[in-house]
Amino acid sequence: MGQEIERKYLVKGESWRVGSQGEVYCQGYITREPQRTVRVRIVGEQGYLTIKGATQGITRCEFEYPIPLADARALLDLCDRPFIEKTRYKLQIGDFLWEIDEFHGENQGLILAEVELPDENTFVPLPDWVGEEVSQDGRYYNANLVKFPYKQWF
Amino acid sequence: MGQEIERKYLVKGESWRVGSQGEVYCQGYITREPQRTVRVRIVGEQGYLTIKGATQGITRCEFEYPIPLADARALLDLCDRPFIEKTRYKLQIGDFLWEIDEFHGENQGLILAEVELPDENTFVPLPDWVGEEVSQDGRYYNANLVKFPYKQWF
Repeated sequence: MGQEIERKYLVKGESWRVGSQGEVYCQGYITREPQRTVRVRIVGEQGYLTIKGATQGITRCEFEYPIPLADARALLDLCDRPFIEKTRYKLQIGDFLWEIDEFHGENQGLILAEVELPDENTFVPLPDWVGEEVSQDGRYYNANLVKFPYKQWF
Repeated sequence: MGQEIERKYLVKGESWRVGSQGEVYCQGYITREPQRTVRVRIVGEQGYLTIKGATQGITRCEFEYPIPLADARALLDLCDRPFIEKTRYKLQIGDFLWEIDEFHGENQGLILAEVELPDENTFVPLPDWVGEEVSQDGRYYNANLVKFPYKQWF
């Protein structure tokens, strides 16, 4: 059982790439409702099943379970299309771990940075490649990028 | 990863109760679609998270993961109401394990027997308390008993 408190930003420029190494994520959704999502994710050889509750402000409850890769592959078959495909880069900057998602496929062109916080009011110094905050813009939720992918925004 | 092949029957009379001991199950659904269900279940002190695919004939794919009780309690909060409450009795008869569900709450009065099969064509000798087969009658799916509980059928 956990709680996820995070802020999400657009990314400017390329300076964040220096020295960062990414991992490919493939994920799908069994349920994509505002009050609850059920996500299947594959990272490398590991599967994950994740359930999240409704977002309140920048907080939501989250439950994540590692599952066998074969299960995750079969569960992706039950998910809505397209899948969300992205490369995730992790950057530790001071006290904060930044996760930068560079999307592929139907969401190619979109790059988002997320930072997880211990508390909604925590002050986070923003690196210079951080752009506009989009924490509360529903279009940027991964679950919504299935239904309305970035390539169709323009 | 698994496959569930089962037949479901109504139960006649009370003779199945002799010597059987039941356990209370409480379960809810995060998703109840014909193609996929996500179920949260509590049995005693153990939680389970179960995902099932579409039923084809009497077969469907099933993935079940034990989860901590505290998680299961919190996940039930995300589920549709009413919850499915039932006492499950297990009876080994010859080669077959019968599960008899006596429903409570909004489904009080309904008693169903299920038997899991290694193969769709397996012949199962039916005990004398087994009544009409309802394997393919969607009303008897636990997920559907949430939306249209047994007490409202008459």
